[in-house]
Amino acid sequence: MIERRQARRVAVGDVAIGGTAPIAVQSMTNTDTSDPAATLAQIARLSDAGCEIVRVAVPHASALAGFGEICAASPLPVVADIHFDHRLAIEAMRLGAAKVRINPGNIGSLARVDAVIDAAGAAGISVRLGVNAGSLAAEYQDRDWPLAEKLFASALSFCEHISGRGFADLVVSAKASSVNSTLDAYRRLAPALPYPLHIGVTEAGTSRSGTVKSSVGLGILLAEGIGDTLRVSLTADPVEEVLVGWEILGALDIRRRGPELISCPTCGRCEVDMVPIAQEVERRLRGIRTPVKVAVMGCAVNGPGEARDADVGVASGKGVGLIFRHGEIVRKVPEAEIVDALMAEVEALGREMADPAG
Amino acid sequence: MIERRQARRVAVGDVAIGGTAPIAVQSMTNTDTSDPAATLAQIARLSDAGCEIVRVAVPHASALAGFGEICAASPLPVVADIHFDHRLAIEAMRLGAAKVRINPGNIGSLARVDAVIDAAGAAGISVRLGVNAGSLAAEYQDRDWPLAEKLFASALSFCEHISGRGFADLVVSAKASSVNSTLDAYRRLAPALPYPLHIGVTEAGTSRSGTVKSSVGLGILLAEGIGDTLRVSLTADPVEEVLVGWEILGALDIRRRGPELISCPTCGRCEVDMVPIAQEVERRLRGIRTPVKVAVMGCAVNGPGEARDADVGVASGKGVGLIFRHGEIVRKVPEAEIVDALMAEVEALGREMADPAG
Repeated sequence: MIERRQARRVAVGDVAIGGTAPIAVQSMTNTDTSDPAATLAQIARLSDAGCEIVRVAVPHASALAGFGEICAASPLPVVADIHFDHRLAIEAMRLGAAKVRINPGNIGSLARVDAVIDAAGAAGISVRLGVNAGSLAAEYQDRDWPLAEKLFASALSFCEHISGRGFADLVVSAKASSVNSTLDAYRRLAPALPYPLHIGVTEAGTSRSGTVKSSVGLGILLAEGIGDTLRVSLTADPVEEVLVGWEILGALDIRRRGPELISCPTCGRCEVDMVPIAQEVERRLRGIRTPVKVAVMGCAVNGPGEARDADVGVASGKGVGLIFRHGEIVRKVPEAEIVDALMAEVEALGREMADPAG
Repeated sequence: MIERRQARRVAVGDVAIGGTAPIAVQSMTNTDTSDPAATLAQIARLSDAGCEIVRVAVPHASALAGFGEICAASPLPVVADIHFDHRLAIEAMRLGAAKVRINPGNIGSLARVDAVIDAAGAAGISVRLGVNAGSLAAEYQDRDWPLAEKLFASALSFCEHISGRGFADLVVSAKASSVNSTLDAYRRLAPALPYPLHIGVTEAGTSRSGTVKSSVGLGILLAEGIGDTLRVSLTADPVEEVLVGWEILGALDIRRRGPELISCPTCGRCEVDMVPIAQEVERRLRGIRTPVKVAVMGCAVNGPGEARDADVGVASGKGVGLIFRHGEIVRKVPEAEIVDALMAEVEALGREMADPAG
């Protein structure tokens, strides 16, 4: 249904961005890069949650020693996030970065951009050109243009310069904290550039508001076929960014990781306490990789209809749950046993799907 | 930027849906309707959170006594949610419902629909025709059509029947738990009907997944100009549904209630603990109605640029915060005083905005 924009395919370590490659989910560590143990522990948690590319800030030279150790041990390709000092980008590539992200608005002169690009070209490493509303180059910041036009013009001008230098392994982003400005910027970039686009809404906010802004913004772009990799920006544990990223892709049936849970809104018809049941099911499903559709329904009105559509479901009545599989009632259990009974069916279905001959 | 679909204007008590009326935020109580005190207490919390229309389930005749008391005391127009028994709809209107919601898939014969419509017409009360993937009429449920086509065909056929009876105060919804089916159904309904559309993704899930599915689905529809009132469905406290609904409207700059908070994603450049600061600012901003833009930024890279754009902001460094107003540094405070100092500026700005001559 969604016709994806065609973009060049760019390698980030063993993960591809663009072309027909799956839209990759990224996040960024918030540990101190000069503490490799803490950073690697967080990367492991991010990887478990489904993160596919991880970005690590290299804010100053003292972070470089840790950075090399992180790249060597990380299970995910590591992107060095560089601001201000282009020499950090060059050193990060030498130390094992799979990609570097530079912000043309604050890296300094074109000669410095060229030094980074030439080093990346020689090493076969990709570069993200990450333009950002908060740090546009002064020549754009001060113009009386709509923000999206500034973001677009800045990105386009740097892309043209870099392309003229013969470097093509670019990924481009142009983020603003306003969803509408972000949409506007990416809608301008998409037809104008051959490169894959990294999409995101920056400074999106705390867990709730950031989740909503990212879901609205990235959802609209993805539905228009725009976006080859994404990062959800939250002021929260970065694991949450990864989970939300996957939920966005799943919501549009673009990619799914593990089970899909549908559950009732609560209403005055509920005769069991739905919220803890659904939360507990969600928590336990996190360890399951089988792409089953699981329904947790609080009443008889919509329950059976939706549970029929699900692989496994429960429709609850007064203190009991009717466990369904593909629309057939398989068990009736007391409320306290609903979660266990539902998970037992999910696991049984998982085994059958893994070994259909049984 | 968004060109809104033109729809008839329908009254729900003193709130209008459709035409040029603001897109109204709805929710639904999950208390027992036969307990008016508990239901009214929840309605008060929903109203405080920004709910503008509240739906209350009337699942059986024993809920009717409480329903009348709820309608009489509710600060918000009350919609009676009716399934199966059309007599409950008629009685709910007599008891003060501002609107009734019926589901054509389970209300029974057309004669029963007519009885509801005629009673609504006589009383000047509006009706929502709420088609739902989980409870489609059998004649549609069993067809080998895409779900969205079934939802559309069912809604259209009932609308035509009701229109033929001379009743026009209709609001229409066609929700599925799949975002793509929901989008597809509303995109078919929007050009085919003159009535306002109530949009939502049903059985959207727990707080995180439901927030994402609703934000993606409703965000895409609203960006296409579709939707005159919305409900976010979450398996969570219904207050959360209202907050997410407002965040969706705010994300697209359609409507805003109170302040906008932008805050950094966390990253390895952070030198203060951003998450609790941003959460505490978000919590304290909830009581403020002034539409100020507040920025909470963790470092010097994007902080000053974004804070310049905000009315009030803080950009933090090692253990200190620089408080900005419209780009001008007004104070430097230790980390522990950041939230208080920022809120003092927000409140001062609120007073100035309320009394510019000050």
